[in-house]
Amino acid sequence: MRATLMYAAGDVRVEDVPDASIANPTDALVRVTRSCICGSDLWPYKSHAGDAMRMGHEFIGVVEDVGAEVSTVKKGDVVVAPFVASDGSCVFCREGLQTSCKNVAFWGMGGNDGGQGEAVCVPHADGTLVVLDVPADDALMPSLLTLSDVFSTGHHAAVSARVEPGKVVAVVGDGAVGLCGVMAAKRLGAEQIILLGRHEDRTNLGREFGATDVVAVRGKEAVAEVEGLTGGDGVHCVMECVGEEASFATATEIVRPGGTIGRVGVPQFKAMAGARPTFLHNVTVAGGIAPARAYIEELLPDVLEGRLQPGRVFDRTVALEETADGYRAMSDREAIKVLIA
Amino acid sequence: MRATLMYAAGDVRVEDVPDASIANPTDALVRVTRSCICGSDLWPYKSHAGDAMRMGHEFIGVVEDVGAEVSTVKKGDVVVAPFVASDGSCVFCREGLQTSCKNVAFWGMGGNDGGQGEAVCVPHADGTLVVLDVPADDALMPSLLTLSDVFSTGHHAAVSARVEPGKVVAVVGDGAVGLCGVMAAKRLGAEQIILLGRHEDRTNLGREFGATDVVAVRGKEAVAEVEGLTGGDGVHCVMECVGEEASFATATEIVRPGGTIGRVGVPQFKAMAGARPTFLHNVTVAGGIAPARAYIEELLPDVLEGRLQPGRVFDRTVALEETADGYRAMSDREAIKVLIA
Repeated sequence: MRATLMYAAGDVRVEDVPDASIANPTDALVRVTRSCICGSDLWPYKSHAGDAMRMGHEFIGVVEDVGAEVSTVKKGDVVVAPFVASDGSCVFCREGLQTSCKNVAFWGMGGNDGGQGEAVCVPHADGTLVVLDVPADDALMPSLLTLSDVFSTGHHAAVSARVEPGKVVAVVGDGAVGLCGVMAAKRLGAEQIILLGRHEDRTNLGREFGATDVVAVRGKEAVAEVEGLTGGDGVHCVMECVGEEASFATATEIVRPGGTIGRVGVPQFKAMAGARPTFLHNVTVAGGIAPARAYIEELLPDVLEGRLQPGRVFDRTVALEETADGYRAMSDREAIKVLIA
Repeated sequence: MRATLMYAAGDVRVEDVPDASIANPTDALVRVTRSCICGSDLWPYKSHAGDAMRMGHEFIGVVEDVGAEVSTVKKGDVVVAPFVASDGSCVFCREGLQTSCKNVAFWGMGGNDGGQGEAVCVPHADGTLVVLDVPADDALMPSLLTLSDVFSTGHHAAVSARVEPGKVVAVVGDGAVGLCGVMAAKRLGAEQIILLGRHEDRTNLGREFGATDVVAVRGKEAVAEVEGLTGGDGVHCVMECVGEEASFATATEIVRPGGTIGRVGVPQFKAMAGARPTFLHNVTVAGGIAPARAYIEELLPDVLEGRLQPGRVFDRTVALEETADGYRAMSDREAIKVLIA
């Protein structure tokens, strides 16, 4: 079968790989119908060295076969996979933190297939997959695919930042996660949503998703603008959707005393800035890798019933064989997020 | 009047200073009857350079006079002061985060008197002071004095770490705050309380306060022992009561996925370790400087009615003129915490 590999920074290829197949009785074989490129895929696209890696961790597909012990999905089911596979039964899965599953598996790692390919062997199929009660070619597919990662991650930023009705919120980053984060903050009732981003096409979509204000500068200028928008107090909730040292530092500077930073940008740094300022003002730093498996079921009704269209973050579609061009387009910021279909 | 000054690292003197007096109509003049030395006073005791500083931020006393606009305390009242003065009326005070008061004042700074002296002019007396309905020489005074900082701070560590019934808790540090933290964790219903500390006299008191286990090693050995005590999962709640880089790092290594670190040790470092590991396991870092003013009223009944004796952390008493020796004794770890009476 064909699948996407990252050979080195900037070197993405679609090649022949061994056919996906069931190895364990808890596996399911899924024929991929939609996948996409993640902002986090751009980190290795900028820096990868070493062995070639299988890519892709967001996908929707149709079940082709299941192992003998699989009971919740069956051949022909349309399923969405969260960006981490989990057994569904360990203590962390039962607590809704499937990303810390004792049998956690990451797509493309440890011998697992990646989502950017023709098919995937899904480990722990019962714990991992969620069945979608729609046809495989339904018009909702782009929005449903965002549940796999980007919308669940934006939602996690909002939940971690303790967004609730009446709160003043800032979203740091106008990538697809930040934009989905705006939508998630609005969904949870935020009163004011300040989007920090410098790409007008993106922040315009952010306004459509619910941003009430846009701050199109960085660093100290951004901090001053947020102060101006919040009577000098800062925001209750910061949703940090980038993961760079500077963006995290900005988060610590715009948060209100007693406020919370929900961080979902994969940290590209070892230590978190602002130990003393956040201490002095009792700022909480929460968040991390989103337990999408827990959120898919929570967010699914809003997508299925058409109340939310997070799939609007996809502004380009490529065929599997054109995936390398999709990476290039996202890296060059020609596209917010690229669908592979 | 006489008061304590820090001239330089290791150089503490009790000297004549201008008499405390009312300057503003919202002030109260308090004759100090009990004060004490804080673990945080040991940071400048190790490193202070520059101008001499007035010391002390924990005290109980008797009101001698009040300004014209003071309405909640009167001459003759026995009062406890939290370690930060606050106006009681700004948005942060109303939210219970008096340490971020818009008119916050710190004892010994900005021209304010320190608590380690004969008297203190208390700014924002209505917002700051809490009246104690007991005689000034009551036997409960040591425990009541802990509400000013050390017990409130231990409680803040427990609240910030989300301690509640059934939780497995670790307290990092066997200083007075850590020991009070053990008591606070037990008060909030923790199921297991692991105290990390290497001073047997202190950890023995910690056991009396409620610690179920003691880990008397540091670093990787401590992490391994906590793993052994928690079935390999780590603890739900870490109460970081030291503030050193190594103790914070240990906190990030013993916390369970999805768990919370409540930090109350004043950070002696700029950036918080473990950005990626805490991200991967959705660990929350909360806490900071304790809003003691909010907690005094919450904790007061347990102390007044004798259910808790946090004053047991005082294992030495000195007269005001002997304060320098009190600092030395705490710095040399001869005493856990020194009462000045």
